[in-house]
Amino acid sequence: MTDPAASRSTGYSAWRLIAEELRAEITEGGLRAGDRLPTENALAERFGVNRHTARQAVASLAADGLVESRRGSGTFVTGGAVHVHRIGMRTRLSTSIGDRHSASGRVLESETVTASPEIAERLGIAGGPVVRVESLRTVDGEPVALGAHWFDAGRLPDIATALRRTSSVTAALRAHGIDDYVRASTVVSARHATAAEAALLRLDPGAIVLVTESLDTLTDGTPLQYGVTRFSAQRVRLDIEHPPPPA
Amino acid sequence: MTDPAASRSTGYSAWRLIAEELRAEITEGGLRAGDRLPTENALAERFGVNRHTARQAVASLAADGLVESRRGSGTFVTGGAVHVHRIGMRTRLSTSIGDRHSASGRVLESETVTASPEIAERLGIAGGPVVRVESLRTVDGEPVALGAHWFDAGRLPDIATALRRTSSVTAALRAHGIDDYVRASTVVSARHATAAEAALLRLDPGAIVLVTESLDTLTDGTPLQYGVTRFSAQRVRLDIEHPPPPA
Repeated sequence: MTDPAASRSTGYSAWRLIAEELRAEITEGGLRAGDRLPTENALAERFGVNRHTARQAVASLAADGLVESRRGSGTFVTGGAVHVHRIGMRTRLSTSIGDRHSASGRVLESETVTASPEIAERLGIAGGPVVRVESLRTVDGEPVALGAHWFDAGRLPDIATALRRTSSVTAALRAHGIDDYVRASTVVSARHATAAEAALLRLDPGAIVLVTESLDTLTDGTPLQYGVTRFSAQRVRLDIEHPPPPA
Repeated sequence: MTDPAASRSTGYSAWRLIAEELRAEITEGGLRAGDRLPTENALAERFGVNRHTARQAVASLAADGLVESRRGSGTFVTGGAVHVHRIGMRTRLSTSIGDRHSASGRVLESETVTASPEIAERLGIAGGPVVRVESLRTVDGEPVALGAHWFDAGRLPDIATALRRTSSVTAALRAHGIDDYVRASTVVSARHATAAEAALLRLDPGAIVLVTESLDTLTDGTPLQYGVTRFSAQRVRLDIEHPPPPA
């Protein structure tokens, strides 16, 4: 890494740059669960900073649950903080992150609004009322994903009530007589969390969200649900499902 | 947005928080290409900051190519800076980002190394030499993706030379008699760019990379290429290909 001190003038602190280097090594497998992190002295020497700065970097990784101190024996990579969300033809947030016991979802708010031109286009409707639902998904009490969902209010007038009752899109759609739906499109991007997102997902300023914009349809292609889900990038990875080769 | 000034003590500046809010609106379509950005005065009022801070936020969006000033008429969303990389069964970086004329790839370095246990496992080999290639992909002269690729040196001894000559994995594999390969797995995550990545991708400190870890195989499932690609999150979105519904 090139002189981290040089970046101070941009408002981006040296400890943060060091934490990023270490985070990259942890998330990409150079440092694995159970591995011991170099000591603060070794990190300070490696990155050319003082020990206080190295300690700050390690503390920020600990705050994210990526490493943990064990009294008298050092700091170790936990590897336990990252959940995998599988994206495929039958993507179901409710069964994909965490198991049934540890994961839960709840509706934060819902409202019926007039469709913006963009939402109307995605839902394949001329306009009119749509139901917008905001939801928060937690695993082991830790927030992992913030969802915004849009449904055609003409087709699914009671979807918000069903979602509040069942905490599951799949179950709420079943209550409307819809037994199956498929993922038609998913676009993935990443950006810094907004202040509102950081508050709900309990993230530090500067934390990252992975954003999926997705459309679910009936098996005949009729649009059913447009969604924008923001995953905490430090807690979630997306596993893309590919069809088996034709062979 | 809640008091951005309150975040100053964390080293995360108010202008950056405002830039993130606006970036989120642009990338998720609330503000679209050609839309006029609110004036600095309007932004200052909306976010409760002074005009200088609002100007800094807009300047950082301009530096990323997301907005541009037009003399006398204001600042507008360009929408031209984001490329889409399609991920599906037949993912080809060389044809997916940019068209043939504007995009190019080049090998930064290559070496033959002993496989780490992790790389050996992914490539389905017991160990032995692997070829590691680092590549950089640009569109219109702008770097968009940094790739690390691993190949079994026993199977593909000349892959690095072929990659340097052809600048395309598809063409380099064809030179080895491999006419077809398929994507077996893709895992997507996001994190801050390391200093080295930021330098190569020409990103500011604190910028984000979308990371794909992927395995390509022959159509019979034999592992061929393991890759870790880091995309500039401000320039690239990933479009996941889903199979058509069974209908």
